Parts: sequence; structure tokens; C-alpha cells
Amino acid sequence: MSNAADAYLRTHEEEHLGRLFDLLRIQSIKTDPTMAGEVHRCAEHVANLLRDIGLNRVTLFPTRGHPVVYAEWLGAGDAPTALLYGHYDVQPAEPLELWDTPPFEPTIRDGNIYARGSADDKGQIFLQLMAIEAHLKTSGRLPTNVKIIIEGEEEVGSPNLDKFIQDHRDLLKADIGLISDTSMYAPGVPSLDYGLRGLAVLQVEITSAAGDLHSGLFGGAIANPIQVLAQLISDLKDREGRVTIPGFYDDVVPISDDERRALAALPFDETRYLGEIGALASFGEPGYTTLERIWARPTFEINGIWGGFSGEGSKTVLPNFAAAKISCRLVPNQDPDKITRLLSSHLAAIAPASVKIEVIPLLGGKPALTPLDHPALEAAATAIERGFGKRPVFTRSGGSIPVVATLQSELGIPTILMGFCLPDCNAHAPNERMNLANFYAGSRTAAAFWEELARLG
Amino acid sequence: MSNAADAYLRTHEEEHLGRLFDLLRIQSIKTDPTMAGEVHRCAEHVANLLRDIGLNRVTLFPTRGHPVVYAEWLGAGDAPTALLYGHYDVQPAEPLELWDTPPFEPTIRDGNIYARGSADDKGQIFLQLMAIEAHLKTSGRLPTNVKIIIEGEEEVGSPNLDKFIQDHRDLLKADIGLISDTSMYAPGVPSLDYGLRGLAVLQVEITSAAGDLHSGLFGGAIANPIQVLAQLISDLKDREGRVTIPGFYDDVVPISDDERRALAALPFDETRYLGEIGALASFGEPGYTTLERIWARPTFEINGIWGGFSGEGSKTVLPNFAAAKISCRLVPNQDPDKITRLLSSHLAAIAPASVKIEVIPLLGGKPALTPLDHPALEAAATAIERGFGKRPVFTRSGGSIPVVATLQSELGIPTILMGFCLPDCNAHAPNERMNLANFYAGSRTAAAFWEELARLG
Repeated sequence: MSNAADAYLRTHEEEHLGRLFDLLRIQSIKTDPTMAGEVHRCAEHVANLLRDIGLNRVTLFPTRGHPVVYAEWLGAGDAPTALLYGHYDVQPAEPLELWDTPPFEPTIRDGNIYARGSADDKGQIFLQLMAIEAHLKTSGRLPTNVKIIIEGEEEVGSPNLDKFIQDHRDLLKADIGLISDTSMYAPGVPSLDYGLRGLAVLQVEITSAAGDLHSGLFGGAIANPIQVLAQLISDLKDREGRVTIPGFYDDVVPISDDERRALAALPFDETRYLGEIGALASFGEPGYTTLERIWARPTFEINGIWGGFSGEGSKTVLPNFAAAKISCRLVPNQDPDKITRLLSSHLAAIAPASVKIEVIPLLGGKPALTPLDHPALEAAATAIERGFGKRPVFTRSGGSIPVVATLQSELGIPTILMGFCLPDCNAHAPNERMNLANFYAGSRTAAAFWEELARLG
Repeated sequence: MSNAADAYLRTHEEEHLGRLFDLLRIQSIKTDPTMAGEVHRCAEHVANLLRDIGLNRVTLFPTRGHPVVYAEWLGAGDAPTALLYGHYDVQPAEPLELWDTPPFEPTIRDGNIYARGSADDKGQIFLQLMAIEAHLKTSGRLPTNVKIIIEGEEEVGSPNLDKFIQDHRDLLKADIGLISDTSMYAPGVPSLDYGLRGLAVLQVEITSAAGDLHSGLFGGAIANPIQVLAQLISDLKDREGRVTIPGFYDDVVPISDDERRALAALPFDETRYLGEIGALASFGEPGYTTLERIWARPTFEINGIWGGFSGEGSKTVLPNFAAAKISCRLVPNQDPDKITRLLSSHLAAIAPASVKIEVIPLLGGKPALTPLDHPALEAAATAIERGFGKRPVFTRSGGSIPVVATLQSELGIPTILMGFCLPDCNAHAPNERMNLANFYAGSRTAAAFWEELARLG
């Protein structure tokens, strides 16, 4: 690593942490309409940060939603150009009562930064930016060219990003994508993701009558929408964990024997995996290991359900409405639109005539795989070895970053997924955290990556 | 009817309405712990009302919960003694946004009193009290003896009433019970209920892990508690509407052919029944009519369900918790404790090992039937004929008033169920209402009942 950039990052750790905290304090929750002002303020904050770092052409590109923040540094001539992507929006923080410290008051505890967004993705995009700053402030230049887009709608499926990328293909032209929005394989086991799952999310609503009814006067004679919804959900998955929607698995690329062997060779302690999240048991599709289930197989999950009375005590009501949010994680070559269609039409087909059913698509994103033999992957592996002192393992991720598929289809580039949070970082749950040592080592890795990427010429 | 009592009721209609409104404004929601003060204030209010009417020995009997208000008038010598029961607590008013006018600001509209409790039960106990007042204020006496208990915990299953009745058997000794807490069979069709369903209510909670999880990182490998809860609920009832809990129907007294014929002879317009509540279709246990399903067959209903994310938009979380409230309406000779045991043990038996299941009994009440040939039923029928100008039909009710079973078992008396609200009164739903004409005719009927009961000597 450049001694100067390395020294800069090491001597500025405390100052960088303070600047990260300023970013984490902004409640940029895109899913919450009342927080729209905070999301926009976050975009402005990020733009100022990019200017302070010394990047050029800092621009807030408006979209139909929140702006995409763009910046670039193109002074490295014929060296490769990387397109760094991140997002400044965060997941909702509910349920608030389960946080040990408030989600938007960043706190250091047990060697971790606790805050909503500390891992997903403010903490990780910030460590990338500090690596760029280290080069620019110490040598006045970067070893490669860089373009940066930081969007504000990732947690709702980036509804306006694809159009932005399509509309700015020339501006965004690059040789490789770079994203830090995933986790390391395990504590002390740095990793590089070469695959991501896609996503199809929808809401199902069941209505039986104009209003809630007295269960004594109508119970037994009118369909109960919660019962119907439970039956539908129950019928979409068998008791062993297989999705039963006709055609659901049709486009799934089977796991190769080689990949099964590679995944099986990874260090994986199932007891510990379950223990870390306090789960009683693993449960999933028969015939697959846990790693295969979360990386290479599609899922069907109920994210939320509601209907009727959920307060203290009892209310013997026969509700007239029930609803659920459903998300499917997808793998190559499943298509989110097709899966949404299959699910919608199957639900309509099996719903009883005693209720009205409505299916509302919420978002979708395609799955992605990066070729294992791409030279930029090796450059990233060397950078990780320099930053962490050990070679990374090659993994897939169960999560979804739809932009990776878009960068592939619109710009024709694969993406390096360089993730530094830990698997128990609670990315979408209370007490989200970023390991402090990984945050610093990640930033030094990112600084090294620009040098390794430059060597590819 | 006594001309004086009749005239008194007719000339005091407006004043009585004002006094009822004062009672309806009190937010006596027993299920809401923050409303405990209002429930107690309501008990005091009722006690003052009883004193104003001219009743004797007005007492607030403390219980482990809210007090039972007692009063009596025992100046009729050897005439029969009736025990009038009512309750001053009301159902929760949620969802508030579905009320056209605020639930605790009584409003007259379209010939109805709109307010929480207008039908269940403040409006109905109040019309009984005004009938007593009419006799006491005009002739200084009642034709019969009366004892009154008005409790504050009916909507949570009267957890302390049985003990109160057991502890005060001598005080409460009477020849007949009297309750106005049910509805008339139809508009213009006054009725007398001779049967009530019982109730067993419980809560089921499913937990899979210590906290919510990222569905990308854990989805497919850990059981989803909403999915499990949906499967359990789905498995407790078949798709045609039969409850599948082993032993559930064992103690059900079958409907006799005579009763089936009598129920079939009642005027019943199913299209109108469904139309009034905006339901798409009837749905229930095969082999039974709608009236049989709601009056003479037990039910299994989900009153509420919750778990995971239910906010605006999407959150791709794998929740760690889901819960549902379940109530079963029971018919003779089902026992609520036995049904709760059957349901709990069946749930525990079929729940998968991947989750923790907890079943919390919430309340129970026994079903009841009053002999169709009891002379007090005929006295009530004559009173209704005097108040409404037509003979009542004899019906059962799908609702539950556990005190009826207790009066039978502890005091050895049957109960007259004289209900005056209409079937679409929204007793446990938004826009609860009491038909104004029925309110007045009901009060005149109640005044006549004391005279008819006196004739039985």
C-alpha cells in the first residue's frame, strides 16, 4: 500500500469516525414518507462529503424519487475506470424498543459502531470514500479513474436507478463495478462475493366484508380473511420448505458439483450460525446445505402479516381484512417479473370465492453472478490480502443488490463485491453494527484496491 | 301497560336520551389498561344513576378487577324476584378511523344512537333502568321485586363475576334472570333468545430466533414464524370450514329435527344478511344452514394476527415472531376449559421443532340454553307484544354471555334474554348503534315485563 495513503488512514481514524457519525445521524429512511426531507438532506450531505474529499463534477441528479449523487476523478489517463456504487438510504428502524441504543445516535460499544446504516450501507460506502480521500489528500491523485454513484432508494428496490443508468450510459462508462454493501464470510475470514440473489416483493390483501363483524353474530357463517390468508400462505410452501407455486423453480440454474464441493469446503459451523441469532434449528429446502439454501436457492418468505385485533387482552371480532407482505429471493436465471406473475396468478387461482383477493407488486431485482476468473476479482483479492493480512475466500451472498444486474446489462461490466461488515451485523434488524477493526482494515483495503486495479493496465 | 309508567317513558324520552349520552361518553374500555380510571368512574356513575332512580342498597362491591354495582327494590312482598344483569364496560373502539363520528361522542343519525356501548350494553341496561324508574317515579313501587348487578368486565369474559356470584348467593337469590344484551332477530321482528354460545379465547405465539433477521442472509435456512403460524392456523380448519382439532365436536349436542324445522321457518333472507355487511358469500361448516352455523354450531375464528413488518412499502425482513388471537364460540355441552386444553395440546403436537410455541388462555365462558316452556319466557313474550305491538319469535344467539351459565349453575335460575338492538348494530365494530325507536319501545316493553312477571305470582 502507498505508505502515504496508509499513514493518512491510520492517523485520521478518529476524525473519519466523527464524520461517519454525522452521516449516520441522518434518518434517511426511504420507506417512511414522513422522512422524505431527511433523505434529501442526506443526499446534500453526501454531495458535500464528495466535494470535501476532492472529487470533481459533484452533481445531484434528480429522479422521480430521491436524487442520485454523482462524482468523478478521471485524472489517471489510460488506467482502468471503476464505477463505485453505494446508497445513502437505510432500512426502517422499527421495532425501536429492541435497540439497546437509539438507531440514529451512533455509539461505539464492544468494538462495534452501533447505528442504523452503520453496515448497510453508509458505513461501507464511507470507508470507500475515505480510501479515495487518502490518495487524493496525500498524493493529489488516484492510481485509477473513478466514477461514483450513491443513490437514495436501495432499500425500496432502487425504482429509479435503472432509468438513471440507462439515461447516462456514456457518463457512467467504466471497466468494472465496485460495491461495498455485503458482509465478510465470517469474523477473521475476509471474502469476495461473486453472486447475489435477486428479489420479488409483493403484498397480498384479503377482504371478506365491508367492515369488522361480531364473531358471535357472524362467526361460522362468513369467511374469516385471516383464516383464508393463512391457508393461502400455507399452501404456497410445503411443510418441508419447498415452494409449491407452479413454475417457481423452472428457471433456476442448478448448483454444479464443482460449486457444491467449493461451498462444502468453506469453514461453516452450523451450531454457531444458529447460536449467533438465537435460532432453535435450521430449516429449509430438503436436499441442500444451509449455505446452498441461502446462496444458491430461491426463497419464499412472509415479511409481515396483519389483520384484526392485536392489542392487549381479547376482542372477539371477526375481522373483514387481512394482509401480508411476501418476498422471494431469486437466483440465476429467475426473473422477478415472471415470479411476481406466477405468484399473483397462482394466488388468484387458489383463493376461495368467499373473499376478494388483491396482489400488489412492490419491487423486483434480478439475481447476478460475476465470472470467477475475472482479473479484477484477483486484484480485489490481493487488496484484501494487503488490508487484512490474509487471502479472501470466494463466496456468494443471499442478499440482493439489483444494481449489479443492471451494471451487467446496461454497461456490460461485472462488479466486485467487497464487503466488510460481519454476518451478525443486523443489517435489517435492531442493533445494526459495523465492526470497528473491519471498518479501518476495509478502508485500507479499498485504498490498496486502486493500486492493484491500476496494475491491470 | 300501566298508563302512568307508559306516559312517564313517553314524556321523558328526550331527558332519558341526555342521561344515556352522559353514560356513553365514559370510555370504560376494560381491555385497555390505560382506561382503568374511566372504567372505575363509570362504576361510580352507574351507582349514582341507580340512586337517582330510587333503588335501595346501592353498593359498589369490589372485586380483583373492577367493582360490581349492586342495587335492589324488594317492596313487592311475595311477588317474584328478578335479577337484572348488565355491564358498564365496552369493547375497544379501534380502528378509530372507520368511525363516522367519534365512538365516545354519542350522535343521533338516521334514527340511531351512534356510540361505543350504545347497543352493547350501556344502551340496553339503561332502557331497563328507565323502565324501573318509570314505575318508581309514578307509583312509588314496582310490581315485582328486583335485584340488579352491573359489572365492568364482561368484554374480557367476566373474570371476577363468577366468584362474586358464588360469594353472594343469598344476596342474589332470585326466581329469574333478566338480561338485555342481545339483538332482535330482525328489524320489525322482536325476538326472545333461549340459547347462547359459550366462548374459549386464547393467544398463540411463535418464536424462531432472538431477533428479526435479514431475509437475504437467513431466508431459506431458518423457519419463518409467520409461515409456521399460517400453517398451524390452516391445519386447524379444513378448506370447507370444519374444525379439525381432535375432539372439538365430541360434546356438541346435535340440533334436533324439531329445532331445525323451527329455525328453517324463521324469516331469513340470506342475500340481505350478506348485503347488510357487504360480504361476498356465506361460508361455513358443510351440512348446516347459516342460522344453524351461527346459533347451534361451534366456531373457530382468528380474531387477529400480527408479525414482522406491516408499514408502508417493503422491508425484506425475516421476522422472529408471529402471534394470533383465536376465539372459539361454543355450544351445549362444550366446556371452555376442555376446548382450550384440546386446542393447546393439539397446537403443541403439530408445531414443528424449528420454532418455540406458546399458547396463552385469555378467557372462557360456558354455553347456555333456557327451557322453551318456562312461564317467564311467556311473560316476556307478552311484554314484547305490549311494547312492540307484535309477538316475538323464539331464537338462539351466536354470541356469548357467560353469566347466563353462571346464574344457572350458582343460583339455579334460567335467564330471560330480551334484546332490543338490531343485527347490524356493529356491537364489536366501528359505528356501533342502537335503533332509537327500539330503544324507546324496549323501555316500554321492560316496564310491561314487571307487570307480566307479577301475574305469575
